[in-house]
Amino acid sequence: MPERPLADLILRDARVVTQEPRSGVIERGWIAARAGRIVGLGTGEPRVRGSARAVERRVRGRVVIPGLVDPHTHLLYAGRRYEEFVERRAGTPYLEILKRGGGIHRTVAQTRAASDAALARLLRERIARAAAQGTTTLEIKSGYGLAVEEELRQLRIIDRVRAEAPIDIVTTYLALHALPVGADRAAFVAAAGRAVATVAREKLAERVDAFVDEAVFSVSDAGVVFRAARRAGLAVVLHADQFNDTGGAALAARSHALSADHLAAASDRGLAAMAGAGTVAVLLPGSALIVGYTPPDATRFRKAGVRMALATDQNPGTSPLEGMPTAIALGVNLCGMRPDEALTAATRNAAAALGRERVSGSLRIGKRADLVVLDTDDERDLAYRVGARLIREVYAAGRRVAG
Amino acid sequence: MPERPLADLILRDARVVTQEPRSGVIERGWIAARAGRIVGLGTGEPRVRGSARAVERRVRGRVVIPGLVDPHTHLLYAGRRYEEFVERRAGTPYLEILKRGGGIHRTVAQTRAASDAALARLLRERIARAAAQGTTTLEIKSGYGLAVEEELRQLRIIDRVRAEAPIDIVTTYLALHALPVGADRAAFVAAAGRAVATVAREKLAERVDAFVDEAVFSVSDAGVVFRAARRAGLAVVLHADQFNDTGGAALAARSHALSADHLAAASDRGLAAMAGAGTVAVLLPGSALIVGYTPPDATRFRKAGVRMALATDQNPGTSPLEGMPTAIALGVNLCGMRPDEALTAATRNAAAALGRERVSGSLRIGKRADLVVLDTDDERDLAYRVGARLIREVYAAGRRVAG
Repeated sequence: MPERPLADLILRDARVVTQEPRSGVIERGWIAARAGRIVGLGTGEPRVRGSARAVERRVRGRVVIPGLVDPHTHLLYAGRRYEEFVERRAGTPYLEILKRGGGIHRTVAQTRAASDAALARLLRERIARAAAQGTTTLEIKSGYGLAVEEELRQLRIIDRVRAEAPIDIVTTYLALHALPVGADRAAFVAAAGRAVATVAREKLAERVDAFVDEAVFSVSDAGVVFRAARRAGLAVVLHADQFNDTGGAALAARSHALSADHLAAASDRGLAAMAGAGTVAVLLPGSALIVGYTPPDATRFRKAGVRMALATDQNPGTSPLEGMPTAIALGVNLCGMRPDEALTAATRNAAAALGRERVSGSLRIGKRADLVVLDTDDERDLAYRVGARLIREVYAAGRRVAG
Repeated sequence: MPERPLADLILRDARVVTQEPRSGVIERGWIAARAGRIVGLGTGEPRVRGSARAVERRVRGRVVIPGLVDPHTHLLYAGRRYEEFVERRAGTPYLEILKRGGGIHRTVAQTRAASDAALARLLRERIARAAAQGTTTLEIKSGYGLAVEEELRQLRIIDRVRAEAPIDIVTTYLALHALPVGADRAAFVAAAGRAVATVAREKLAERVDAFVDEAVFSVSDAGVVFRAARRAGLAVVLHADQFNDTGGAALAARSHALSADHLAAASDRGLAAMAGAGTVAVLLPGSALIVGYTPPDATRFRKAGVRMALATDQNPGTSPLEGMPTAIALGVNLCGMRPDEALTAATRNAAAALGRERVSGSLRIGKRADLVVLDTDDERDLAYRVGARLIREVYAAGRRVAG
């Protein structure tokens, strides 16, 4: 008989939602970790040996889920945009605010003006708040630089904070976010394309992103930075078809993007192409709620066979949403996901959107021990009890980071 | 010079949002309380003497607001309704579920089957969670009895829990919530009307409520219990025009109801009548989000000159929403309130909806010291940072109850 594995963290007497199709949910379950990795899980009495300093927690009547994965945020910024928020509520369309130098441009000015230290402090606080809400893998984009040197500065700040963060951070170079007012489009796109090589050489980001929509960037602009990403060996993702269908979903599919995000206005052909390419759809109900447009309809994605993920899109303008529990609740109540779909969208599929599916997003032996204990006996409460504080304990790579 | 008043609680160095039109916001403000009442507030150095056991807290860079007031909940119930929740998401209308004995009827069966002790325990837990989210005045309705003896049992349970609750509880007898399957309508309404006298005699509730809509109760049914309430000296409120305009708003106005609640389908005439009568409109965006109907539009209420309040409508079916911060965020982002309107709706106007405006809902000398310290320097974050955990400390009648 093989010796029982050694564990330094054991959670037991829980309902364990593994997100592994083959095992599903384990009632009266346990899960054990050592050195940050899952070393065992099952039902009944834990079949592991506790190390000398092992933490063993009985979480009777509660649910353990995989750490939540937030695959789309704009977390590095300074300032707030209350006035625009109020103005949008009064009926001014977001793309109009953007055109006249508001929206992103306002945050760009405030972020450029902030010191490295100030930005790093803000970013650390936001990461801590995300972790307290159950996020153990967090994507962070640059994109409030809109000039190569400033983008690189922002990516370097993210990288320094990432290295010491309590949770896993995935950095994305958002090469095309908005055209600076008065800038030459072709020159701007070309410079962003050239910057991709620097980003890759300095290992500042894993992914390259672009925002394709009317009055923003075109499919052919995005093609420039995507080709550069391919040459540099970086993955690509896309802000696609948020307000208008400009062919973003199809571009994402033919570029083998990890994900296409937003997609409220994507065409059926675009979704079919994504399904064929295995590109994950990252739905961002927070920005639909806050900007006030019709949210993406989960039924269409389900029908097309596209994998759905959820994210906060946390940013100071169109989605100041905080916490994946709210994204889950809105995914169900605004986009029409089923509660089980929304939880998969916030864990396993979100990890896939980040190219992290082998590492996190579900609970099985060998994966990182990213675990959340919910203060309920039914994980559907994340969708059902909107606004409830359900995140009780959060473990990232086996270490307690919140709760 | 008068002697400075004695205080046992002093919060200082705060942005104090008083909700008193004449003073508005106090920057670098302080607020002091003694024996549960506000004894002073102002800017700069507190002009009070601390008692021997006084608590003095510097809350620099943070906001102090009046304790939040939730004027509409169905908090006494057993069981959950996940299946119905999923079914509604799949497209079945709520009134159809209700007609075939689902919806409220399901909760009625589960609540009837629960013991006094079990219901009291659930209620205490829910009150503690509400307080942790900043609620210091909380309305609780009966209504899952649908038979006089069972309604009285539920009201007695609420009353026992109320007597020992850390926050102020306002009890409402929801006399007409749903017609039991197979019951005779006239006999049911008459019995509910007679029960009002018992409720008043035993001091089990301050208010009488009825649910008026198609397939539920009519304006004339509500008239029966309202007349009984008037004879017994109880205030009246109404679930009005949630799904269809059946004249609820106008009935509320001519009955001098404290509030009419829901109102998503209310007519302009109904709103005008409410404005004339001073009846508060309690908007419940949680149920609009969760059931999936068009939310009430704040513009219409603003135009009609009706005072708007917000509530969670917390209940196990149509609005499992928890916490007034989420109600505020949805009031702005779904109903189109301005952030300042939503905060007034969750404090001063909500107190008015409960007949508690002289006691709570704003900060001035003599009112109860119900105070919330927000973990931000701008109260608009309650509307803006949807899902953020902003409730830092909660004081009810000067005693710390959460945070």
